[in-house]
Amino acid sequence: MSEAIELRISEDGRQRTVSATRGETLLDTAHRAGVEITATCGKRGRCRSCRCKVVSGTLPPPSVADNVQLGHEEVRERFRLACQTRLIDDTVIRPMPPKSEAGHQLLGGQAETTAMALDSGVQKLAITVEPPKSEHHQTSDIEEVMAALGDKLTTRDTRTDLLRDLPAKMRAKKGELTATLFRGKIVDIEPGDTTAQAYGMAFDIGTTSIVGSLLDLATGEQLAAVGMVNPQAPFGADLMSRIAYAQFNPKNLAQLRGKALNALNELIGQAVEKAGIEARHIYKVVVVGNTCMHHILLGIDVSYLGLAPYAPVVRDAQAIPAPDLPLKAAPSAHICTLPILAGFVGADAMACVLATGIYDSDEIRGLVDIGTNGEMVLGSKDRLIACSAPAGPAFEGAQIRHGMRGALGAIERVSIDQDVTCGVIGGEAAVGICGSGLIEACARMSDANVINASGAIKDKPGLPSAVSQRIHKGDHGQEFVLVWGSQGGKDEDITLTQGDIRQLQLAKSAIYSGVAMLMKEMGVGADDLAELLVCGGFGNYVDLPSAVRIRLLPEMPVDRITYAGNAALMGAQMATLSETELDRATELIGRIEHVALAARPDFQDLFIDGMGFGAPGPAVTEPEAVAV
Amino acid sequence: MSEAIELRISEDGRQRTVSATRGETLLDTAHRAGVEITATCGKRGRCRSCRCKVVSGTLPPPSVADNVQLGHEEVRERFRLACQTRLIDDTVIRPMPPKSEAGHQLLGGQAETTAMALDSGVQKLAITVEPPKSEHHQTSDIEEVMAALGDKLTTRDTRTDLLRDLPAKMRAKKGELTATLFRGKIVDIEPGDTTAQAYGMAFDIGTTSIVGSLLDLATGEQLAAVGMVNPQAPFGADLMSRIAYAQFNPKNLAQLRGKALNALNELIGQAVEKAGIEARHIYKVVVVGNTCMHHILLGIDVSYLGLAPYAPVVRDAQAIPAPDLPLKAAPSAHICTLPILAGFVGADAMACVLATGIYDSDEIRGLVDIGTNGEMVLGSKDRLIACSAPAGPAFEGAQIRHGMRGALGAIERVSIDQDVTCGVIGGEAAVGICGSGLIEACARMSDANVINASGAIKDKPGLPSAVSQRIHKGDHGQEFVLVWGSQGGKDEDITLTQGDIRQLQLAKSAIYSGVAMLMKEMGVGADDLAELLVCGGFGNYVDLPSAVRIRLLPEMPVDRITYAGNAALMGAQMATLSETELDRATELIGRIEHVALAARPDFQDLFIDGMGFGAPGPAVTEPEAVAV
Repeated sequence: MSEAIELRISEDGRQRTVSATRGETLLDTAHRAGVEITATCGKRGRCRSCRCKVVSGTLPPPSVADNVQLGHEEVRERFRLACQTRLIDDTVIRPMPPKSEAGHQLLGGQAETTAMALDSGVQKLAITVEPPKSEHHQTSDIEEVMAALGDKLTTRDTRTDLLRDLPAKMRAKKGELTATLFRGKIVDIEPGDTTAQAYGMAFDIGTTSIVGSLLDLATGEQLAAVGMVNPQAPFGADLMSRIAYAQFNPKNLAQLRGKALNALNELIGQAVEKAGIEARHIYKVVVVGNTCMHHILLGIDVSYLGLAPYAPVVRDAQAIPAPDLPLKAAPSAHICTLPILAGFVGADAMACVLATGIYDSDEIRGLVDIGTNGEMVLGSKDRLIACSAPAGPAFEGAQIRHGMRGALGAIERVSIDQDVTCGVIGGEAAVGICGSGLIEACARMSDANVINASGAIKDKPGLPSAVSQRIHKGDHGQEFVLVWGSQGGKDEDITLTQGDIRQLQLAKSAIYSGVAMLMKEMGVGADDLAELLVCGGFGNYVDLPSAVRIRLLPEMPVDRITYAGNAALMGAQMATLSETELDRATELIGRIEHVALAARPDFQDLFIDGMGFGAPGPAVTEPEAVAV
Repeated sequence: MSEAIELRISEDGRQRTVSATRGETLLDTAHRAGVEITATCGKRGRCRSCRCKVVSGTLPPPSVADNVQLGHEEVRERFRLACQTRLIDDTVIRPMPPKSEAGHQLLGGQAETTAMALDSGVQKLAITVEPPKSEHHQTSDIEEVMAALGDKLTTRDTRTDLLRDLPAKMRAKKGELTATLFRGKIVDIEPGDTTAQAYGMAFDIGTTSIVGSLLDLATGEQLAAVGMVNPQAPFGADLMSRIAYAQFNPKNLAQLRGKALNALNELIGQAVEKAGIEARHIYKVVVVGNTCMHHILLGIDVSYLGLAPYAPVVRDAQAIPAPDLPLKAAPSAHICTLPILAGFVGADAMACVLATGIYDSDEIRGLVDIGTNGEMVLGSKDRLIACSAPAGPAFEGAQIRHGMRGALGAIERVSIDQDVTCGVIGGEAAVGICGSGLIEACARMSDANVINASGAIKDKPGLPSAVSQRIHKGDHGQEFVLVWGSQGGKDEDITLTQGDIRQLQLAKSAIYSGVAMLMKEMGVGADDLAELLVCGGFGNYVDLPSAVRIRLLPEMPVDRITYAGNAALMGAQMATLSETELDRATELIGRIEHVALAARPDFQDLFIDGMGFGAPGPAVTEPEAVAV
């Protein structure tokens, strides 16, 4: 698949077409083509001047700056900041700089107000304090600091370690100090004025990978993005095997915990270096992750997370001083976790709810995080319900005969016409098939009548002969050759076996029937959904029409299915920048109802139904996205 | 000096005289003599049945049980619990069991109410908790615990380490748990019912010695008393040299801190072993000490404590979880400090104020803690003022030619008649003189006209010849021989030099002029003081009439001067047992005015006046204590 795509810019009734590169920002692409879009803040996502509307084509997921500057409402209406939005496919945009509204323009280099409250809970205050001078006057060093902070301070409780070296700090720069408060409590005192340095970091600890984002707490600007494979992966690819490793074995739990702590320390180090800031100026670290990742990071016994009823040990949002976790790389920070809804609907799902704003939607929206553990939420401002379903590792290519990760040599695109054509990552000879390839292969095999509604591979009259020749009974039962051995990167044929298709059916039905269960519970059909938001890294690679074709996602028009990006990290970023958002998560926990699929007698039927691929033959063509 | 003393028991109009031993309790002495005094609680200080009044003779200092069961008012009126009170000298008591008052009698083995509130802030609650059972019901282990605790819990904040092993604990004994709250917050969770085990520990960290008391928080009973020499002593005998060692030298500060932490760990270990309890059931540790000891324990820089205006770094009462200090021996405890008034009027002085109850006295009372740093407080419920004065180490025998600690071989009693007679600790041959001996020697030398009002040693006409022979000019100027070399434990004479007397004058004037300054500030004379309470270990050994004779203490009738025992430890014990008392200390900080002696221009005159010993010749005989 080529990286070259097209950006069309619609302005003053005419469209200009610019050849673009996947991953480039809208603004850079436009500027390259000589289209002027104002970027008052210098492309830092700190103002609204480069606002565009994505009028058709693929809607790129929002950035944290989009949520901060534009808010849920505009994000939903397909507005984006051109400087922050990276192209993922052919797109048509219309620049729509906001009218000069007071409060939304740059004033002194910084937006005065934003769509999302920038109230991180961190306050840095420059004060000048005289050390006690009179013997008569009864006071102490810290009281002088507290007096200067006035009512910003809501508690006199102070960690002892802040007192230890206070005398020297107070006398270092003629009493000039910067006191940092978190939630009204002193968390740091430094000589001099460091008020401009207030940073936060957001992390999404996934079972497979860990991603982080360093943010300027005052402006919401993203200063660095970092990520790595979760170093716990060698101890179990999916949640259940990770739990099994740590279960009733404190030493193994400690080992997994150490891996997670090391990863965060490492990523903070990388981010700080990229951004050129001091780690001691990171005051808030928000971590989201599924319940298992959350508990392991905190060192909490996960033994019973793996046993029905899969109850968490704690669900409340936590705020842990870095020395207590311990997180050495950000010594002044509080590590905050979002609340957990249920054992398998974790803080990551909460973060997705926060990020997508479905809690304040007038219409019913759904969100699906496709992964080894799928998490689904459905609802609107009136009611929210959630469930989880173990899809297993098929989407990651595991338990598939020629399955592999989405790496070089993986088949990720499949078309079937007179014969089969495969698109391979990196354009190399195919060595296997990844999850998104598997979905597309099954979609095209359904279209071509190679598999029937129940997923059976069957040679039928009327198939093109080149296609028909690919169906044969091999050592592993009925199978379909995607790439002949002579053409691929290995000697043997790359095939999909009947067993592979069964694995995919189990995985995709977990998601499909989970969403179906939520719709049943809510009493709505797919037609009633204003939008289905697909979250998580995997969603980025899935061809959405194919996902609908094989009934991984509910049968609904593809233009109402949106790729929402890493919504868990987005939610973590929002909670980092805004206590309002973090508090909202706690409030939402009380509102979201958990639907325990396994405990529902009516779920079995939905699951069996979800195994099917839908009628074979060419799929009904979906309508094009809304024209300009 | 013999240990044999007399206890006279006055009952029903007749007195029985019992030969007693110093340090024995009133109750044991009475029982030995066949005098029946009821001890309903089994001599544990947990009821009021053995109440006595000390009608004359030496009033023993109150125990913590006296303060708990009887309260300030009765303690002031010379009531004591016979089972807790140890004889220090000839004493006359009258048993006065309280009338059968509801609420003060033993009910089910425990007093229902006491004179002092037993509200330690520690609550242990036995609960039965079912682990979450339903997948539908959204909850977590800790939420089940919290629900069972109801409104006893005032915060949902929970230390992460309590969550870590909660799942196993919840499932260990069919959900039977004991949750321990401190100030409404969960601080421990254990399987089974351990509600009966709730302990606290009080410490007074003095410059010279550290003493501790293990208490049952439910009853106020003292379970063990422990003590040791402060292991920081080798790094400086007095405060200023201790500060100088740590000043601008974090490594030395850390070393001193380590010594203090080790001492507390060691003493807790000893106390726990004596009492046969588990250290994990100690939930509150109250530590008092002067500001320097306080700061060192907490690891706070003391550099500026040694420089005018001697300001502390922090004055507020602290409550530090044991892992944060760290105090390993009591892992579940909070370490609480009393507030500090000023640099040299520390948490120990606050504890003395609390213990003696002078803050609620109708009449004006004074308290004096005689030590290398003397602390003085004067006042009543209407006004309280305090000051400190550096007396230096003369009272500990330092900087005195033949000075020594109050150990075997030290002269502690001196009488002068036709010749000089010395009482030596242990009855052995004298090897030196201790602080209390020094005071008594000077008192008797004043009486005998060997020294004049300004402290000069002068041979005068009319002295007995044996006394006169003892005055001579030696290598160190004019001196007075207390013990001839032929009679003592060393070859040389044990003398008091003119220089020794000057050292004592400087030391005693620090105390005397400090009290005088407070009286001046308050506008009262010694006659206006209802009571002068002498606190601290040294006070135990000082002959009070001698201390008045040499003007170490103000000239007032000795029967209004009371030895209050280790009032600092008493205050710490009260704050351990009662949050009401601990809160009172914080409230009192706002009420006590600090008088900075060095900064007062009128202090110099008082200090010079305080150097004098008063008129030579026999002292006026003080009236006997109130008759029966």
